[in-house]
Amino acid sequence: MDRIGVLTTAAGFGPQAGEIHLGDDAAVLGPLPEGHQLVLCSDAAVAGVHADLDLLDLADLGWRAAVASLSDLAAMGAHPLALVASVITPPDTNPELILAGLVEAAAAFSCPLVGGDLSAGSQAVVDVAATGTLPAGSAMRRDTARPGDSIFVTGPLGASAAGLRLLRGGERGGELIEAHRRPRPRLREGAVAREAFVRCAMDISDGLGLDLDRLARASTVGFELFDIPAALGATEDEALSGGEDYELLLISPDAGGLRRAFAAAGLRAPLEIGRVHGDPAARLLRGARFTPDGYRHEVG
Amino acid sequence: MDRIGVLTTAAGFGPQAGEIHLGDDAAVLGPLPEGHQLVLCSDAAVAGVHADLDLLDLADLGWRAAVASLSDLAAMGAHPLALVASVITPPDTNPELILAGLVEAAAAFSCPLVGGDLSAGSQAVVDVAATGTLPAGSAMRRDTARPGDSIFVTGPLGASAAGLRLLRGGERGGELIEAHRRPRPRLREGAVAREAFVRCAMDISDGLGLDLDRLARASTVGFELFDIPAALGATEDEALSGGEDYELLLISPDAGGLRRAFAAAGLRAPLEIGRVHGDPAARLLRGARFTPDGYRHEVG
Repeated sequence: MDRIGVLTTAAGFGPQAGEIHLGDDAAVLGPLPEGHQLVLCSDAAVAGVHADLDLLDLADLGWRAAVASLSDLAAMGAHPLALVASVITPPDTNPELILAGLVEAAAAFSCPLVGGDLSAGSQAVVDVAATGTLPAGSAMRRDTARPGDSIFVTGPLGASAAGLRLLRGGERGGELIEAHRRPRPRLREGAVAREAFVRCAMDISDGLGLDLDRLARASTVGFELFDIPAALGATEDEALSGGEDYELLLISPDAGGLRRAFAAAGLRAPLEIGRVHGDPAARLLRGARFTPDGYRHEVG
Repeated sequence: MDRIGVLTTAAGFGPQAGEIHLGDDAAVLGPLPEGHQLVLCSDAAVAGVHADLDLLDLADLGWRAAVASLSDLAAMGAHPLALVASVITPPDTNPELILAGLVEAAAAFSCPLVGGDLSAGSQAVVDVAATGTLPAGSAMRRDTARPGDSIFVTGPLGASAAGLRLLRGGERGGELIEAHRRPRPRLREGAVAREAFVRCAMDISDGLGLDLDRLARASTVGFELFDIPAALGATEDEALSGGEDYELLLISPDAGGLRRAFAAAGLRAPLEIGRVHGDPAARLLRGARFTPDGYRHEVG
């Protein structure tokens, strides 16, 4: 097992960080800012499962694995601290190409890749663990939605699924395909929402329907949607059940306050798509019931 | 991608930890103890590469992946804080069995498994990222060995390689096989060495010869060994080039001080096996030169 010893951007650590020591058994990071907590997650991308390498390149696989983990940090409202990655490759696959995508994402989102390891395997796999920090007690969680809260998303949905559809149809460029190849975590949106006292959030990695259902179960609430904002060129079905857009679900009792905080931060206005329902069984779209499984519409 | 939401032992966090929040996009851990740094690493175990599943079971695969990462913490002298794991399994493999081994190791070494994810793939893979803490500036590194320092190992070597040999020969029980199936990280030894002012260390995951060569390169020094302590039942070759014993290499200018610290902590006495050499090209065993590649003896 070779060690990865890469530092993409010391600047990403910010002034609070002290020593960064690399190329050892483990990376040593600076002390956390005072009164801050550590946030920790991991996400794996498997070639052929999470990415079709006939349509995406190895650097895309690395980028997407980094973004999946960074998006988990965004969903908690955390500031990124550092990534480690384990890269597994079959003999015909160059791990450097995957690493290049990881390093690009690490630089783009100011979260240095500080270590990891390289192994052989029969299938390309990239697993990225991410650490972040946030002020103690301020994490946005899945289990804190309350009846009457407004449900927001940080942007229109379905671009990644539409991009995959276009790639499969033979197209090779354009915004939708870029959204599929190189999704972006909503780190600033997550931090601004947390600072605006949002305490319930989740990233949309598996589709709005499935992920909102998970959030509702965690909070023992239902939900009613009155809008499914589809990205330009995406179908409503892609917006509802396509994954990997990495927009955030933000649940807030103070819709006006959240809008003002986003405007003050210069961020695109969040989109209000529905309301939290007191009945934990409620799964409504424009008054009609739909099933959680695949989120096909049903007459309620 | 299902999320892993397991807490193996809150006690592992120690009194310094605050809130632990699980089952979300990421785990939220307590603030670090004051003046402490964060240590971060990851290690992957791939079925068929790092473990032969004809000889080991899936729980062993999980245990060994956790230990590989915990051993990296031990080598830095860090206290374990938390693990996250990504588990990838083919359709015929039950991820719960791998998780069971991960959870057993997490409990055995007081480092809670706080999250991760489950994915499908063509080959079983377990990737474990570990976080730990240590007092700022005290990390044991690979690049700080100085000529004249004593080279110690925390125990006799080759047990894991000997156990694998016995397993391949059809045996199924005994201490050597247990050493291969269920290696143990030397967390206490690492912490005691760090407290005794050792500043250079590394874990032996790929064999004494290969790992000591890496440490010497990182420190721009050579080494001279006068002993290869083999575990009872292991050959000298297994002790020199067998991996996965996870004993620690400890490099100290104060051999007596290190021995006293281990005795005071009730630990088995560390074994002095050689000395750091001022010539970066020196690779000597009992006065004879040997090549770094595979560590076969040569007349010097």
